[in-house]
Amino acid sequence: MPSTSTPTATAQIGVTGLAVMGSNLARNFARHGHTVAVHNRTTARTTALIDEHGHEGNFVPAETAEEFVAALEKPRRLIIMVKAGDPTDAVIDEFAPLLDKGDMIIDGGNAHFHDTLRREKALRAKGIHFVGTGISGGEEGALNGPAIMPGGSTGSYKALGPLLESIAAKAPDGSPCCTHIGPDAAGHFVKMVHNGIEYADMQLIAEAYDLLRNVAGYEPARIAETFRTWNTGRLDSYLIEITAEVLAHTDAATGRPFVDVVADEAEQKGTGRWTVQTALDLGIPVSGIAEAVFARSLSGHGDLRRAARGLPGPGRETLSPAEAEEFAARVEEALYASKVVSYAQGWNMIGAASAEYGWDIDLGAVAAIWRGGCIIRAAFLDRIRSAFAADPGLPTLLADKGFADEVGRAQDAWRSVVATAVGRGVPTPGFSAALAYYDALRAERLPAALTQGQRDFFGAHTYRRTDREGSFHTVWSGDRDEERTA
Amino acid sequence: MPSTSTPTATAQIGVTGLAVMGSNLARNFARHGHTVAVHNRTTARTTALIDEHGHEGNFVPAETAEEFVAALEKPRRLIIMVKAGDPTDAVIDEFAPLLDKGDMIIDGGNAHFHDTLRREKALRAKGIHFVGTGISGGEEGALNGPAIMPGGSTGSYKALGPLLESIAAKAPDGSPCCTHIGPDAAGHFVKMVHNGIEYADMQLIAEAYDLLRNVAGYEPARIAETFRTWNTGRLDSYLIEITAEVLAHTDAATGRPFVDVVADEAEQKGTGRWTVQTALDLGIPVSGIAEAVFARSLSGHGDLRRAARGLPGPGRETLSPAEAEEFAARVEEALYASKVVSYAQGWNMIGAASAEYGWDIDLGAVAAIWRGGCIIRAAFLDRIRSAFAADPGLPTLLADKGFADEVGRAQDAWRSVVATAVGRGVPTPGFSAALAYYDALRAERLPAALTQGQRDFFGAHTYRRTDREGSFHTVWSGDRDEERTA
Repeated sequence: MPSTSTPTATAQIGVTGLAVMGSNLARNFARHGHTVAVHNRTTARTTALIDEHGHEGNFVPAETAEEFVAALEKPRRLIIMVKAGDPTDAVIDEFAPLLDKGDMIIDGGNAHFHDTLRREKALRAKGIHFVGTGISGGEEGALNGPAIMPGGSTGSYKALGPLLESIAAKAPDGSPCCTHIGPDAAGHFVKMVHNGIEYADMQLIAEAYDLLRNVAGYEPARIAETFRTWNTGRLDSYLIEITAEVLAHTDAATGRPFVDVVADEAEQKGTGRWTVQTALDLGIPVSGIAEAVFARSLSGHGDLRRAARGLPGPGRETLSPAEAEEFAARVEEALYASKVVSYAQGWNMIGAASAEYGWDIDLGAVAAIWRGGCIIRAAFLDRIRSAFAADPGLPTLLADKGFADEVGRAQDAWRSVVATAVGRGVPTPGFSAALAYYDALRAERLPAALTQGQRDFFGAHTYRRTDREGSFHTVWSGDRDEERTA
Repeated sequence: MPSTSTPTATAQIGVTGLAVMGSNLARNFARHGHTVAVHNRTTARTTALIDEHGHEGNFVPAETAEEFVAALEKPRRLIIMVKAGDPTDAVIDEFAPLLDKGDMIIDGGNAHFHDTLRREKALRAKGIHFVGTGISGGEEGALNGPAIMPGGSTGSYKALGPLLESIAAKAPDGSPCCTHIGPDAAGHFVKMVHNGIEYADMQLIAEAYDLLRNVAGYEPARIAETFRTWNTGRLDSYLIEITAEVLAHTDAATGRPFVDVVADEAEQKGTGRWTVQTALDLGIPVSGIAEAVFARSLSGHGDLRRAARGLPGPGRETLSPAEAEEFAARVEEALYASKVVSYAQGWNMIGAASAEYGWDIDLGAVAAIWRGGCIIRAAFLDRIRSAFAADPGLPTLLADKGFADEVGRAQDAWRSVVATAVGRGVPTPGFSAALAYYDALRAERLPAALTQGQRDFFGAHTYRRTDREGSFHTVWSGDRDEERTA
């Protein structure tokens, strides 16, 4: 391999960490005419990449960190594609001393945004740009066009943006699915919320499937058809599309529907959990995402499920074919309305973080770059883009006239589906949480007033009044007079 | 004040930090015949305590840290009652150098258990026992008998337990509401979960109130009567009792029901949020607590609520008096069943942490000491105590025969109440989440199988099969053959 390395700086970009995501990203750059330096801790992966894909473009394989850095044009653009956490810190510690001021380290992994905040600050002190970058689309997206969410400095985006935009997915209108999200950790934050919304989307789809299966009485193949039909309407999206594919698939070994031979224990890798934990810190209700994370962990608790399996529930006779068809149409409405709520919650969270961390995120632009390449790509996202284009200060997606009208029209069906699920014992935590959120948000008065009264009673935590400014406490253990405390 | 201080060690216990909780705790010790050294950063509070309450028992006021430590019998037992976070570290740093090996620092504040883990480890290295101790019951409990949840070493409990037990609340059977929870941070962890459950309880009560108000059409005074009646049955508890008090209260300034003049924006201090964040780390679904935390934060988002207020909902005609009475009875069943689920989730979480951190917590003993003194004290907790006494390995409270029978009998009413709420647009996120959890836990098959299929499709995350061991991947982009990956 040393024979193929070069001492002159000819590469516009470098990728270190050549597992599937890193390799595919490097190939994507090469296919777009960029010269790409490639490096891996063990050289076998570098060799394999060159052997298998070297013909796809200009690669500069590097055996050592020094060779790798030397191969990069200045300012150097070095993408690290390694595991989040300690491995990322190790790679940063290895390369940072070899870089010059103005060079860029781009972290394309799924880092926690708090780590990105820390790393960006440390490298900024050394004059190095650290660009925490969300990349969505999986292996296939990395190769053929992912959605890319770079954070970091505006200056770094000037030097880096055109390269990233060249390999990004294209939205239906042809614009690249890549934009500068905001300073320091804004990119990784937004990627985290993307994944959280993905959890919610998948949970809602799972509930719709469960209802079609156990209430409408449809077989998986029929449900695949239903999803295929939905995919031609407002639910048009990658996740609905692949749902149909998965449900239509037959297990070769048994001849049974594939979904019936898969163990019903969903796994997770952490970004959904991070999203909910972060939302709690920000004080933003994200019940749709939380229920999705909980549903996955519940499914994996075999011990609890075995212990609870005998618990009584209602009977489960399925609907007549005519009723089933009507019911399926209502499920589409419930799914859509619940999806709008999940996205409203996710966007609230991005808005709150943007204010908290001074990121000044363009909320419409986030929707725009998710229209292609990423897992939640959907026609729907263009609606979100235009909602924020029409009103950049929109407090919630539910207040956008278009979404409000649609959800308003869907609500009867939504309520009827949840009531049916509840009556028949089919768990719909996502649909239910979304509907409860909708009803709470639009409520004239919430019973939170009682909660405040209780808190004042047992903890003297005080309350506000509807008719006067200030904080008040009632002397509950005494004469029950009211005192103004602030 | 120096004239009242003493150079000889006569105090069995010391309290530093004399805000209301600390003062009341000190008075509680003094009233039980212990000599109590008292100290505060500013001496005014110490003087005030002695002036107002010095006659209640034997106090040793100390002006300086050195005087305070000198006043304590060995091994010294020093309770710190200051704000969680940095103030606690500051006080530890001040006192630790003045202590000897075998002395005890008892942190009675609401510390995050991760902080307690760190502090215990650091002080253990110096030979000092650090006893993170949950104390529940508010100001009144601190004075007259709180529930006390000490962690720390077994050795420290030998020296400290009798004192704490002497001032703790007594359960109805006369036993003290204090036990050694487990090593290091077990006490603060359990206190955190106590507060999380308290959030869930309060949210469920708020939803019951909202339903009685807006579906049954009851006025607050009538609802107070309803809660008073419920308080004579299986819901008998402090929170139900004070709910009746708050709802029966009339605002003197306006003559209106108190609950109608309180702003409907619930506040929170963080332990509910911590509980959910920690449950996510442990992989335990705590949807009841999460929805309670979200409901409080939602209530405070005035901007979102104003923007959403015009969103369409169903009509809200109230029930006839006869229907209302039946409905109220069903709400009691829904509230009870939802409460059982919240407690089941909370206990799951304690069990998971006990295993994770090696605490070996006696799950029945936790219920036993919450029967008195704390905010969630309730007759109900004796049922939990006996469920774990009968089966210490009970995987979920829902599998206890007694609870399973009750929830089974309640489920029709529970489903009907949630369906009614959903149909009438009254938000019941807590009731709904609890019911969805119940239905998911008892499900023969969950749609998590579809989720796993999707994950394998877009991310090659693999899946397990129901009929064979191993991990599998379907080549979705190719011939759709199945590969065994592990």
